[in-house]
Order: sequence, then structure tokens, then C-alpha cells
Amino acid sequence: MAYMPMLRNAWYAAGWSDEVEAGKLFARKFLNENVVLYRTPDNGMAALQDRCPHRFAPLSYGKLDGGVIECCYHGLCYDSSGACVSNPHGRLPGKTVKTYPVQEKHKLIWIWMGDAKADPAAIPDLSYLDDAPATAFNKGYLNPKCNYFMLVENIMDLSHVDFLHPNTLAAGGVREVNGKKVGTITGAKQTVEEDGAAVTIEWALSDSLPLAIERKHPGLAPSGLIDRRSIVRWDPAGAMTLKIISLPKGCAADEAFVAYNTHLMTPETDTKLHYFFANARSFAQDDVALNEAIRKLREMVFVTEDMWVCEAAQDRIGSENFWDLRPIVLPTDVGAVRVRRKLEAMIADEAAQAATKKIDANVAAE
Amino acid sequence: MAYMPMLRNAWYAAGWSDEVEAGKLFARKFLNENVVLYRTPDNGMAALQDRCPHRFAPLSYGKLDGGVIECCYHGLCYDSSGACVSNPHGRLPGKTVKTYPVQEKHKLIWIWMGDAKADPAAIPDLSYLDDAPATAFNKGYLNPKCNYFMLVENIMDLSHVDFLHPNTLAAGGVREVNGKKVGTITGAKQTVEEDGAAVTIEWALSDSLPLAIERKHPGLAPSGLIDRRSIVRWDPAGAMTLKIISLPKGCAADEAFVAYNTHLMTPETDTKLHYFFANARSFAQDDVALNEAIRKLREMVFVTEDMWVCEAAQDRIGSENFWDLRPIVLPTDVGAVRVRRKLEAMIADEAAQAATKKIDANVAAE
Amino acid sequence: MAYMPMLRNAWYAAGWSDEVEAGKLFARKFLNENVVLYRTPDNGMAALQDRCPHRFAPLSYGKLDGGVIECCYHGLCYDSSGACVSNPHGRLPGKTVKTYPVQEKHKLIWIWMGDAKADPAAIPDLSYLDDAPATAFNKGYLNPKCNYFMLVENIMDLSHVDFLHPNTLAAGGVREVNGKKVGTITGAKQTVEEDGAAVTIEWALSDSLPLAIERKHPGLAPSGLIDRRSIVRWDPAGAMTLKIISLPKGCAADEAFVAYNTHLMTPETDTKLHYFFANARSFAQDDVALNEAIRKLREMVFVTEDMWVCEAAQDRIGSENFWDLRPIVLPTDVGAVRVRRKLEAMIADEAAQAATKKIDANVAAE
Repeated sequence: MAYMPMLRNAWYAAGWSDEVEAGKLFARKFLNENVVLYRTPDNGMAALQDRCPHRFAPLSYGKLDGGVIECCYHGLCYDSSGACVSNPHGRLPGKTVKTYPVQEKHKLIWIWMGDAKADPAAIPDLSYLDDAPATAFNKGYLNPKCNYFMLVENIMDLSHVDFLHPNTLAAGGVREVNGKKVGTITGAKQTVEEDGAAVTIEWALSDSLPLAIERKHPGLAPSGLIDRRSIVRWDPAGAMTLKIISLPKGCAADEAFVAYNTHLMTPETDTKLHYFFANARSFAQDDVALNEAIRKLREMVFVTEDMWVCEAAQDRIGSENFWDLRPIVLPTDVGAVRVRRKLEAMIADEAAQAATKKIDANVAAE
Repeated sequence: MAYMPMLRNAWYAAGWSDEVEAGKLFARKFLNENVVLYRTPDNGMAALQDRCPHRFAPLSYGKLDGGVIECCYHGLCYDSSGACVSNPHGRLPGKTVKTYPVQEKHKLIWIWMGDAKADPAAIPDLSYLDDAPATAFNKGYLNPKCNYFMLVENIMDLSHVDFLHPNTLAAGGVREVNGKKVGTITGAKQTVEEDGAAVTIEWALSDSLPLAIERKHPGLAPSGLIDRRSIVRWDPAGAMTLKIISLPKGCAADEAFVAYNTHLMTPETDTKLHYFFANARSFAQDDVALNEAIRKLREMVFVTEDMWVCEAAQDRIGSENFWDLRPIVLPTDVGAVRVRRKLEAMIADEAAQAATKKIDANVAAE
Repeated sequence: MAYMPMLRNAWYAAGWSDEVEAGKLFARKFLNENVVLYRTPDNGMAALQDRCPHRFAPLSYGKLDGGVIECCYHGLCYDSSGACVSNPHGRLPGKTVKTYPVQEKHKLIWIWMGDAKADPAAIPDLSYLDDAPATAFNKGYLNPKCNYFMLVENIMDLSHVDFLHPNTLAAGGVREVNGKKVGTITGAKQTVEEDGAAVTIEWALSDSLPLAIERKHPGLAPSGLIDRRSIVRWDPAGAMTLKIISLPKGCAADEAFVAYNTHLMTPETDTKLHYFFANARSFAQDDVALNEAIRKLREMVFVTEDMWVCEAAQDRIGSENFWDLRPIVLPTDVGAVRVRRKLEAMIADEAAQAATKKIDANVAAE
């Protein structure tokens, strides 16, 4: 009975860039730790533990002035390195506030909660978000009450679309699989590949109809038969992109409608997560109304369909270990299981390294 | 510091028959386990753990079709035996959903949460509920926030009526007991008997006036002096009937007003219960207004008098063991203590059997 | 990971005298125990555990008659000694309800939750509250969600005033300290003294302006330059008085404005406290409007400034041990640290005595 440990040495999405405004302190909890984020005068980003080491007031309740936070309680001032740079009551204390590596990239702020060296090059590549014009990019934020990994598994196994999203994200054109009428993702050809730490799974559909919402909202997709490739990429621990390439039957490859759906899952606590979602598209890039419609639809579908079932599943399993529950493993879980095993190995490796570090420290101390 | 363990091998009231409608899934938690109930096409009743063994979505969020549940998340289908009978993603998995013996009897659905064989003959006999015409039967459901056994003790010791219910369920005609003015249940003659697993306690009152609410609502009881027998029967773990026989002074036995008050207590969690209550009567059986008045009165009295004090008592004792608190034991507790001791013995026996079973399994495995 | 233990052998403020009305039962939780308070016919005060030892109903739900509580559930009656003095169901049980020493003094009710002998002479001396006329005395009660000791530390270190209360309780006349502009408490001369179990800390300010709220509300203080002494006294475990002596520049000592601010912190649970505050003053003693203005201002400042930050700090540290967090200790913490060390020693001493008592009891039993 224990929640899955969290991988600390990884880049996690901490917020959308525009959530952290110049001159303002922004508080959010990641991996059970309270963090305050702010912009520094040199156009950098700072992330400090949101707790003054004197009497533990939240630093986010303080005042920000020139990259320095003044604690609201007794006026100690800290810069972005966590050092106390002003003490109105005497000498500067040596003790510093814990800081976290933080980077701004792809319209997002990324944070690294672990002790190992953080390499900015390891931030998941979401450059498609940079490339999209404002009218072909939309985004949102939600705060579901479940373990973040439930949503990772949700996206890794798109076969759920036919069942959980029959009237929204499922492709039309019901067909028979195993003597049962199902939508077209089910039974589609899957290909799983590893790319370093990342895992990708592709679902290839031929002769698909547009998705249910695409039929209701013309302009979201081509109208006729489509060859559709749905490519999900997971970067540890919770960054995912679902790239959908919809090629109208008989068209050339460069006539495809391409949509990128970003899903970023960051643990807040063991049973709550920050969910950042976005969409960028290659078609109808000037259509402002379409852009907003996509945002609304995605939020609506997520809240009423995915979040609902994942929060209920969280309630059903509580803190029980996934494998102890001896889950049914289906062929369609191949991607989700691969990701889980990889993540478990990384977490075990992290724990082993932490143990080694501790032994080394003890030996050095003798 | 631990809540009283729950007896698993017993029939518990799971719901009123009309709560589970044909073609619909009904979710409720019993003894800390989530269960989904539904009617099968052969007029049977099914009870499955409300958790798909694939990714743990509640089965109650799924679709019911011909006695088969399709999970809302990935479309696995389970029949009432818990077997997976359709998998749109490949071969049928061997793993099944846990099921629970379930029976429909006496206008109620009964569930058995333990591992031992469930004998339908062991369902408490509430046949008086079957016999009552619709206009002489009324019922309700509440969900109090206390351990279910607090309400068992409440009903086993009717002496509380004079103190907790002075203006409703107490008999008028105050008299002196130990130099103190009390209502008539206090000091009444009690007789406790065991009947197999069941325990009965009878409180016999001579020359009683009608109860306070009976005086306010003519028709609920004879108006003059009454010989009253209040017979409480407890069947493990939480099924109770309070039969009240009110015989007007000087009348023949068959002129008695007979009322059956059903109290069914089923643990939801350690500190919450499902409380099903009903009333059937032998008199004024066609009086629809009286019937509804009785239902409303009983709910009102319970909510404002019994539930209020039991929930507060729960708050006062938390998870402390009853006997560790060294409670005062009064002569009027004879029934409640007998029931508690019997239940504790059954729970100990259940634990011993489970241990033996485990040893046997280990021996067999060698 | 454990909350600071609570000192049991100490007088704690349990309520304002007028909270407990004659003939009524008053329930409140102290140090995790539910207590019922009431006035006895001999003008005394009674404090019993708020839990009947029979079936654990709250005694505060019962009836009070002539100093005796009748339990609402089964009618057992207890007097102020905790003895059962009436049992409508048979002989008097020997078991008694736990009682607590309780005293009424300085317009307050004081309770002693420990096992050691309670000496009324040890009640903190707040006689200034008795001396104040009704129009120069005001008070209030709040129920913040943090450990009580956070507020003890808050008052012991008045340097927070300049930072947390810049527009209310901070003195005007900003000056430079360590090259930083600060209000006048910061950098003021502090003197810490011990007086038996008590600790006092004095902050002396010369040439101070009135406080920010004093400048907004004329009449609260002299208008010109002031020599101000702020003397905080702590009596274990949570009784504090902040006496402020404001002497207008050039006046004789007996022309000083003297205000007493009472702060009484009583643990309800580990993360919640009862906070009783009062104010008595030596000046404008007939000014009813001023009196009410002071009460409102103090409540407003506390709720919007101190409570806000202390509740957030509680959230940030959870149940972690204060010293394990290796807090920064500033010169201005001298009073707060002295108090914490004294209290820790008293708690350790109490634990040692309890252990000795247990050993003695075991030896005697052999």
C-alpha cells in the first residue's frame, strides 16, 4: 500500500509562460513541495521553495522587488539563488532557501525537482508549439484529483477513445472486431518504438471517417475518407504529444491536416496533478473561431469524460500498488506498460543513486 | 486504537429492491468495498466489485446490456459471474471481476461480503414485510456518519427512548423509579433470549399510555391504557426488527395493534453506514395518510434524535476500542452486550478460519 | 515528523466568563479532549470530559439541572465531581466522568488538562483586565487553523510588525537600519528577562511616531513624538500580555498612555487553536466608540495579517519538527527561542515525571 514513487530528476511542466507575470510571485506545489516562481530582471526565471527558512511563512506572500523577495513576515530578503541578501535584524544568515532549476521553453516553464544535474537539453521537444501562430495555438490548465500517471496511461492507450469518447473523439464508421461493433481505433495497427528515454506509439488507421466532433464542427478535419496516423510520444515523466496526421484519401502527403495535442502531466501530490493541455494545427491557421472551438471542445471532453473516470478510478484504487492489483494487460496496453516499466526503472535507478551518494558521504565523513 | 473489525460472512441489506432498477447499474460501498448491483435478464441480481480489473474504472460508469456490463473506459465486457465475455482488443483475459453472493428477499437486496459459502436460508426472516399491503408498509434510507454498531446498540437498549425521545417515542404516564420520575420503558421487565445466531430482548409494559407521538397522531395506537410488549430481534450482523404489540386493556389478544419496525444497519466504512428502515402494521392498513405520516415521523425522529447523538458519540470515541474505554455497563445493556459478545466471537471465529485456510494453503503448496 | 507535544500541566484559557452562561452547557475541545463546562449552583465552575462513560454520548447534549447533567441518551446523571448521582436503570455505577480543575479569574475561565496538582495561584496575572472599566475593555475570540505556538512566537517577536503590519501596527517614521529603510521596531533595543516560569521581552523605542492605525484614528495615542516601551510577557503555555507604554516626548511618566493587549493561545488540536484577545487601556476610558473601534481594528488586523500568514506557514511545515527544519535564528528571536526552550524543558520534565509515576505504580503493584 503505497503510491508510486515520483521521479524527481526530470523536467516537469510548471506552468504556461504567461501564468508567471513580470513583477509577480506565483505559487504552485510540485511533487509535494511548495514552490514560488518569478521572473528575474535579467529575463530569467527563478524557482524557490515557497517557505522562508526563518519562520516558514510562504515567500509567495512577500514582496518582489528587482528579483529579490522580501518575506512578508520579518522582512528577510532572498535573491533568485536562494541566498539571503538583506536582513533588517542583523548579519546575513548563511542558510539559503532551496532553489530548483527552471527553464522557459516552448511557451512553458519547466522545473527540475531532483538533486541530479539538470540539463536544459533534456527538456522535451515541443517546438511545434513555438512554430504555431497565435490563431492556430490554444491551451488550458486543469487540476484533476488523481495520480498523474493515470493520465499518462490514458493517452498512451488511445483505444479508450472508442469507448469513453464515442460522441466526441471517436472516429465514425463503426466496424466489426471480434464480432463486436467498434469504432475504428480499436483494432488499428500499433507500432511502439523507443527513442532514448522517450517512447512512441503509433496507431495507423486507413479509410477512417472524421472523428465525431469533426463531423459536428466542419473545418476540424477533411470531410471524406482519411488515412489517419495518431502518434503519441511520451517523454519522462509526464510530457506527451499526440500528433494526428489526417491525410484525405488520394491526396499527397503535404496536403495532410496535422494537429498536435500536447498533454503535460505534473504531479502536485500523489493524488492530484497539474494538467497542461494545448493544441497546434497546420490547417486553417487564421481561423480564430475554430481555434477557440478546439480549446473549448478539448476542455469539455477532458472534464466530462477522461477526468471523471480517472478521478473515480483513483478513488477505487486508493494508494494500492498497481502491480499488486494484478491488472489485466491487453495488447493495447503495450505502450502504457512500456512507459510504466521504463519509469519504474528510472525511479529505481534514482533511488539506488541516492543510496550510493549517502554511502559515499558517510565514507567521506569517516 | 482500531475500529471494531467487520463480520464479513453475513447477509447485509444492500438496498431496497426498488433502488435497483432493471437495465440500470447501481453503485454502493459495503464494508469498504465498492460494489455495482444490477438485475440480470433471468430476473436475477448481480453484484460485482465496482472496479474494472484492467485500469480500475468503476464498472458502474459503464453500459449495461443484457446482463453484461461494458466498461466505460476500454470496452471490456463482464457478465454477472464476473467473467470477461468480450474484449474488443484481443483474446479474452482469464482474470475475472470479484463477485458477491446476492439475493432478493423481503423487498430488499441482500449481499454477502465474505469468502465462506453463503446460504440464502440464513437471510434474516422479515417476511412480515412481504405480508404487509402497500398502504401498511413504508420505508426509507439514510446514511449516518457513525459505526453501524452504534445503531445496533441503540435499538438493543430501548431504555434510551425515555431520555432521547421524550416527546416522540416515549410512553406517557410518568412514574417514579429509584425516586426519579421516568417514562414507562425505564424499569420495565426485560427478557433476553437466544435463538441460534439471533438474540431477542423483550420489554414488557403494563398499563402504559400511548407513546407521545401516538397521542399527537390519533390512529397510531389504541387510546386508553395498554399492555405493551416491545420485542427486539437482532440477526447478525446488523438486521433488527422491533415488534410492538399494543393490547388495549381488557381486550382479547387478537385485538392487539401490531407494528413491525425494521432497522437494517450495513457498514459502508468504519464510520459510516447504510441505514434502511421500514414499518409494517396490522391495523388501519388502508390508511394511506397514516402510512406516510408514520414514515415521516420515523425519519424525523431518527435524524433529529438518534442520528444526532450517535454521530456525536462517534466523534467522541474515534477509533478507540469499546472495551478499552471501560464503559459503564447497566442492567439495561444486557441485550446490547450479549449481541456485542456474540458478534465478537463470530468475528474471532472468522479470523481463525481465515488463518487456518492460509496455513492449509501453505501446506498444500509445499 | 511529529507535532510539538503539548504541555498538559498548565492553566489554559478555556473561554471568556460570559461565554458560559448560568444553566447552560458549553462544549469546547482543549488539547484534543472534548470538555463540557458549566456553572454550578454554588457559583463555581465545572469542567467534565464531554463524553458519557456509558455509551459515549456528549454530555453537552444533555440537560443541566442544579449542577447535575443528565445524559441525553440514557439518563445517567453526573455532578460536577464527575460522580454518577442518579441512574434510572439500577444501582449507581462506580465509574466517574473525568473532570478538570477549572477556575474563573480575570473575566476568563481557566482549565488545567494535566494530572499534576493545579494551583490556582499559578494562573497568569491579568488583573489589569479586572481593573479596566467596561468602556475601556474589549475582547474577542477566533479559532485559527495552526499550532498555537506559532502565535506565541508571533507575539514574542514584535519585529514582525514593521513587515506584516506596515499600514496598521507599524510605527511611522521610517529610518535606515543596515542601509535598509525600516519602521522603528526593527533595530529597537530588546531586553529579555525571566521571572520564574515567565519570560518577558521589552522593545524600547525613542522618538517614535504613533503607529499607522493611531495616525488614522486620533485618540488611540498621543499625537507627537513618543518614547514607547512594548513589554511582552509570556506565561506558560500560551498566556501573553503586550503592555505598551507611550510617553509623549517631555511629559512625566504618569502622563503615559498605557494599553494592555492580551493574547491567550490554547491548543484545540495540533493544528487549531482557541485565540482569546483583549485590550484594556488607561486613557479615554469613557470613550465607547473608541473602545469598539479598537476591538474591530485588532480583529481585522489579526485576521487579515497574522492569521493569514500563520495558517499558511502551518500548511508549509505540516507536522515537521521545528528544529529538524534548521530554522534561521535571528537576534530578534531571542525571546521566542527562550520561550520555546523553556517550554520544551517543561514538556520533557512532564514526560519524565509521567514515566516515573508509571514505574512507581508498577513497583507498588508487585
